[in-house]
Amino acid sequence: MNLILIDDDDFIAEDRVRLSGRRLAHVRSVHRARAGDTLIVGRLGGLMGRGQVTAISDASLELSVTLDTPPPPRAEVLLLLALPRPKALRRILQHLSTLGVDQIVLLNAYRVEKSFWSSPILSDDAIAKAMRLGLEQAKDTRLPTVTRARRFKPFVEDDLPTLAAGRRCLLAHPHTDAPCPRGVSGPLALAVGPEGGWIDYERGMLEAAGFAPVSLGPRILRTESALPVLLGRLL
Amino acid sequence: MNLILIDDDDFIAEDRVRLSGRRLAHVRSVHRARAGDTLIVGRLGGLMGRGQVTAISDASLELSVTLDTPPPPRAEVLLLLALPRPKALRRILQHLSTLGVDQIVLLNAYRVEKSFWSSPILSDDAIAKAMRLGLEQAKDTRLPTVTRARRFKPFVEDDLPTLAAGRRCLLAHPHTDAPCPRGVSGPLALAVGPEGGWIDYERGMLEAAGFAPVSLGPRILRTESALPVLLGRLL
Repeated sequence: MNLILIDDDDFIAEDRVRLSGRRLAHVRSVHRARAGDTLIVGRLGGLMGRGQVTAISDASLELSVTLDTPPPPRAEVLLLLALPRPKALRRILQHLSTLGVDQIVLLNAYRVEKSFWSSPILSDDAIAKAMRLGLEQAKDTRLPTVTRARRFKPFVEDDLPTLAAGRRCLLAHPHTDAPCPRGVSGPLALAVGPEGGWIDYERGMLEAAGFAPVSLGPRILRTESALPVLLGRLL
Repeated sequence: MNLILIDDDDFIAEDRVRLSGRRLAHVRSVHRARAGDTLIVGRLGGLMGRGQVTAISDASLELSVTLDTPPPPRAEVLLLLALPRPKALRRILQHLSTLGVDQIVLLNAYRVEKSFWSSPILSDDAIAKAMRLGLEQAKDTRLPTVTRARRFKPFVEDDLPTLAAGRRCLLAHPHTDAPCPRGVSGPLALAVGPEGGWIDYERGMLEAAGFAPVSLGPRILRTESALPVLLGRLL
């Protein structure tokens, strides 16, 4: 927790917050903070700054906060991500939030197992929880937006053109000769397939929507490795 | 398992192998292979190719193998990695093996918790097991070499000069203005610190050994995200 994320309803006065639960426990056990200590804080969706501990007990932590620093810039990336295995998804969302990805669409694909869509990690709460951990790690305050698209074809035909307008559109695909570009500036849209890859029909539709296939080379990467490698290379 | 990794002692004739255990179970339950089917195989440390199923039962799988394809090129990277938390280390080793990193030194640092060094994941067997999973994922046959350096100073003073000779040496460090370079060609040495970073003394010693601090920007990344991001950007 490199930053304590505070919510609107944590405020008990204009510049004072009261925290309990996980954040209190962390500040007590890891930061071992005492009255007078200063912690790095950020308001969800807003500015970052410092919080001076005014009171700390078993029950609550009170901070006097000064919020004056904008959060770090976001990566202007729209990520179309074929829904990963739930166990990996939690970590992936956390990584993506740490890396500052702007928009995530969890997309169905032929090779996405149907059962993945009924995982509890797909609830709004669980998604937000995983991504908050990512913000606390990165020192950021802005959550990526996450939407779910359970029907591939209507999403690609009806929604994608608007979402992808003005972006450079790339499709990660192991079996192409075009190497993934480096250090791309400007807004991006990046499509990353499921384990086993997109089927030809899906790839065809994404290519028709303007997505150019690019490869990271002959190695087959898990989604969890492929995403940070792609973002490290592209951004 | 995109490739079935075979060992020298799996061979029952020059071009025939017999497998059991985890690999048999995977081929039966995931590949659902039958006699006559062809699987992608690779000999640990050697060539890759195809294995035709000649017999499959509850007890064993026999393949007739043709090994004629070199494994993918390795990333010429020497990674000095401050020993991560054991739970993360297993996944990190798997990712690094998938990404083809050549040499890994697990290094002590002031902010590495002492208890991490007694984790069972640090046994040769556990390390090899994690990295074999990475090769099966990537379709590769060559394991990274892994060494452990429990004493920072003697390692940096005595061993590092030889190991790092002829390499471009970089030190991942959040608090520097020098951006991490992109698409570096030639052999690299990359030092990645523990949670909380290197202490000044350690950074000083690495800089004296020729490691230039480079940053990925203001976001603080977990080791598990930072490594693939760095490799994606550098390679």
